[in-house]
Amino acid sequence: MVLIRRELGDVLRERRREQQRSLRDLSAASAVSLGYLSEIERGEKEASSELLGSICDALGLPLSTVLHEVADRVARAEGLATPVTLPVPARAEVSASAA
Amino acid sequence: MVLIRRELGDVLRERRREQQRSLRDLSAASAVSLGYLSEIERGEKEASSELLGSICDALGLPLSTVLHEVADRVARAEGLATPVTLPVPARAEVSASAA
Repeated sequence: MVLIRRELGDVLRERRREQQRSLRDLSAASAVSLGYLSEIERGEKEASSELLGSICDALGLPLSTVLHEVADRVARAEGLATPVTLPVPARAEVSASAA
Repeated sequence: MVLIRRELGDVLRERRREQQRSLRDLSAASAVSLGYLSEIERGEKEASSELLGSICDALGLPLSTVLHEVADRVARAEGLATPVTLPVPARAEVSASAA
């Protein structure tokens, strides 16, 4: 079974690291205890709606942005993601100009 | 603050009703107690990742489908939804054919 808290934890940790912020900094900014925040990021604890809202606020991210990212990850884990097909450029023909 | 459990509860209840299933039926199918399921649907209790997975399974819905719907609702509540602009058909000119 795909567990939402694991995917959520990964998203939150990635976003925090992108911002080059420490757990301690985010803990202070979100008023979520350091230990609990760490457990949420590791997917070991469920974040209540209120805590998740506080963490998103502290990261400066709308809750919906985080949720969409989590939903996309869950979809991939469920094998349901729309495959991204990149257009393959046609091989350039080497034109032998006879000029 | 937009609370994910409220939007999640609404999505789960709507999907259950679409399937014309009772709380009792879904409770039995998901092995989530009737009272707890009812509280989750009303947005009063947080669903753990495992319970949410069980409820989605019982509804025959991928977790990611439910999460995308929740994320879309949260985005609307945050005023972040991409507005859906339907193309307005040009008013058909009444062509007075002079033939």
